[in-house]
Amino acid sequence: MKVTVSRKAHFNAAHRLYRKDWSFEKNDEIFGKCNNPNFHGHNYELIVSVTGDIDKETGYVIDMKVLKDLIKKEVEDAFDHKNLNVEVLEFKDLNPTAENIAVVIYNKLKLQLSTHLDLEITLFETPRNFVTYSGK
Amino acid sequence: MKVTVSRKAHFNAAHRLYRKDWSFEKNDEIFGKCNNPNFHGHNYELIVSVTGDIDKETGYVIDMKVLKDLIKKEVEDAFDHKNLNVEVLEFKDLNPTAENIAVVIYNKLKLQLSTHLDLEITLFETPRNFVTYSGK
Amino acid sequence: MKVTVSRKAHFNAAHRLYRKDWSFEKNDEIFGKCNNPNFHGHNYELIVSVTGDIDKETGYVIDMKVLKDLIKKEVEDAFDHKNLNVEVLEFKDLNPTAENIAVVIYNKLKLQLSTHLDLEITLFETPRNFVTYSGK
Amino acid sequence: MKVTVSRKAHFNAAHRLYRKDWSFEKNDEIFGKCNNPNFHGHNYELIVSVTGDIDKETGYVIDMKVLKDLIKKEVEDAFDHKNLNVEVLEFKDLNPTAENIAVVIYNKLKLQLSTHLDLEITLFETPRNFVTYSGK
Amino acid sequence: MKVTVSRKAHFNAAHRLYRKDWSFEKNDEIFGKCNNPNFHGHNYELIVSVTGDIDKETGYVIDMKVLKDLIKKEVEDAFDHKNLNVEVLEFKDLNPTAENIAVVIYNKLKLQLSTHLDLEITLFETPRNFVTYSGK
Amino acid sequence: MKVTVSRKAHFNAAHRLYRKDWSFEKNDEIFGKCNNPNFHGHNYELIVSVTGDIDKETGYVIDMKVLKDLIKKEVEDAFDHKNLNVEVLEFKDLNPTAENIAVVIYNKLKLQLSTHLDLEITLFETPRNFVTYSGK
Repeated sequence: MKVTVSRKAHFNAAHRLYRKDWSFEKNDEIFGKCNNPNFHGHNYELIVSVTGDIDKETGYVIDMKVLKDLIKKEVEDAFDHKNLNVEVLEFKDLNPTAENIAVVIYNKLKLQLSTHLDLEITLFETPRNFVTYSGK
Repeated sequence: MKVTVSRKAHFNAAHRLYRKDWSFEKNDEIFGKCNNPNFHGHNYELIVSVTGDIDKETGYVIDMKVLKDLIKKEVEDAFDHKNLNVEVLEFKDLNPTAENIAVVIYNKLKLQLSTHLDLEITLFETPRNFVTYSGK
Repeated sequence: MKVTVSRKAHFNAAHRLYRKDWSFEKNDEIFGKCNNPNFHGHNYELIVSVTGDIDKETGYVIDMKVLKDLIKKEVEDAFDHKNLNVEVLEFKDLNPTAENIAVVIYNKLKLQLSTHLDLEITLFETPRNFVTYSGK
Repeated sequence: MKVTVSRKAHFNAAHRLYRKDWSFEKNDEIFGKCNNPNFHGHNYELIVSVTGDIDKETGYVIDMKVLKDLIKKEVEDAFDHKNLNVEVLEFKDLNPTAENIAVVIYNKLKLQLSTHLDLEITLFETPRNFVTYSGK
Repeated sequence: MKVTVSRKAHFNAAHRLYRKDWSFEKNDEIFGKCNNPNFHGHNYELIVSVTGDIDKETGYVIDMKVLKDLIKKEVEDAFDHKNLNVEVLEFKDLNPTAENIAVVIYNKLKLQLSTHLDLEITLFETPRNFVTYSGK
Repeated sequence: MKVTVSRKAHFNAAHRLYRKDWSFEKNDEIFGKCNNPNFHGHNYELIVSVTGDIDKETGYVIDMKVLKDLIKKEVEDAFDHKNLNVEVLEFKDLNPTAENIAVVIYNKLKLQLSTHLDLEITLFETPRNFVTYSGK
């Protein structure tokens, strides 16, 4: 019996969408006001979903407290109240679009989970925009 | 890397559930108070989800602004503050159930998207009732 | 000790904003697309708030079940899946703006409550627009 | 055309996470404060999703009213304002984790649905923790 | 310039509505299924609102982190994953209705705040039922 | 009959909490991680509430479209996708705490409203933190 267990978390961060190897004009054309050199920011709402068999002993797929602590260590402590472009290593040469942030979070958490567990990341950049990535 | 990008939108509309080729009694039996000949209405909340590869250049699956504008043109401008039965061509001979509205929206948007992108429509008729369609 | 007890409810209805004694042109100028003669509609979300002393015996200001049943009888049964302009007496000669609907609901419920209880009505016409009325 | 129709419902219940065949100490180690012998409780929010073909006649996958009544009978009447460990037969020897509750609800509802309909259960234990089960 | 600063928090708890000095029948008549002797429970969502002047130096009415820690210490640590009737002293002889819980929380927090700050407590017992108390 | 009409809006922005005339150490002590010199950011959710008499002619306190356009011009166009400290004049020498942002928004909108209308601003800095200001 495969069950998916999901946990919500959040972090607040500043970012700017642009490529260092493009001119300001090209960045402006493609990323518009998201290319503001002074940065803007978001309250990112995160849903981490882990799929696996229910442990017969405990009735858990994964202990929510373990999952909560893992998200805190790998995501919240690393991204919260940070400038993603300037202070988060993964985005040094990677444009911090919602898509790319979701992939980075997926990769960080996947490493910490048992290999028999599947993972899906849903990331809300705003209440109206969100992305989902499950490693496929 | 396949990522799903979702955008929320909404429109307010009146509708009536019934079939022209059924008697009022049969419509009443099947559709109950939704068959009110004077219409009733909803705030439809819409989630449009587009799945595809992340563009290596931009970090986008699809530019959210492009998606937002497409939804505005194809759905909001066409359905908002309208009577679906009376004023929206697609429902002239099609009962505007949430299921059928979702399929109509899917078909309208699918035509406008690159063929390598997958599409899923989630439509909330009320905060407690919603439907999902992905062309399968 | 004055405590306010609030209960949420909802109803779906069609309406049209206009005055019978104005020309279509004037209604169009003032009410825009809300003046659609074929009607549009909303999921109205309602919050009914009752303020009074805590009953020492029960610990209640008002039994939530009593309040829920009162809202059902006076508001949901009267307005749900109705066309407000055509089928609800109170709006025969009263434009069903959110403001006026809130006042009508206030007046209906106030009559049914003990005189020592204060009442406030909050009515969401959409998730982004709402009004509040407390009889002042 | 396969469409998924979803309906939200809820129930409030008390529970305790523990195994009768474990010592208090072991239960405490594994389940922490959820092992409180005096119980704690939740507002469980439930989403029941049914997938099938749209009926050409009605435009429905399943009548939402039928689905609502089914959830009321099988889930809300059985679980609401109950102590899951003490009063709900299914949890007599089954730890009422969110995972196990979702499986129990799935099994109860699946029996009542036509075999050509697929079912998925999403259960929120808190606004931040939820599980999903679809019989796989 | 008086500004109100609000912070959301939550706790999960079991409770039973009844009076020890009433018969089971009378409790059943007044409190219905909330009088279940085996308890039921809720996810209580709490909003703590503090009103005062903006400190010219900091731009704060109160540091949100201070408020968050205060709520954790006085409310979350005391009530979360508890049986309110059995384990929380304040409800030993006080019926834990939403109204009474709000008053108890108000009294606990008021003692810890500077006297020039006003306090209001909003407590959601369910997403549809909530109460507000401000010491008046 | 005084009715309050409320409209929700939002903007995304970067900010830093600090005083230019304090040392980094003092700013760090008071504002903690909000004092990040590289900025962080939020999705600010705004509720603008206008109180006045219902216009007998229209049934409106204020036309929601007028209010929506006013918020767009005075708040969204001015703050959205901006760095509040660097790019918004009002915060040149004013710490952009939620409290101060709410006061600034109040002052900008109050100037544009008829003097017989009362105004209240509610600003969510995160889904868990918000402030309210009504010019008192």
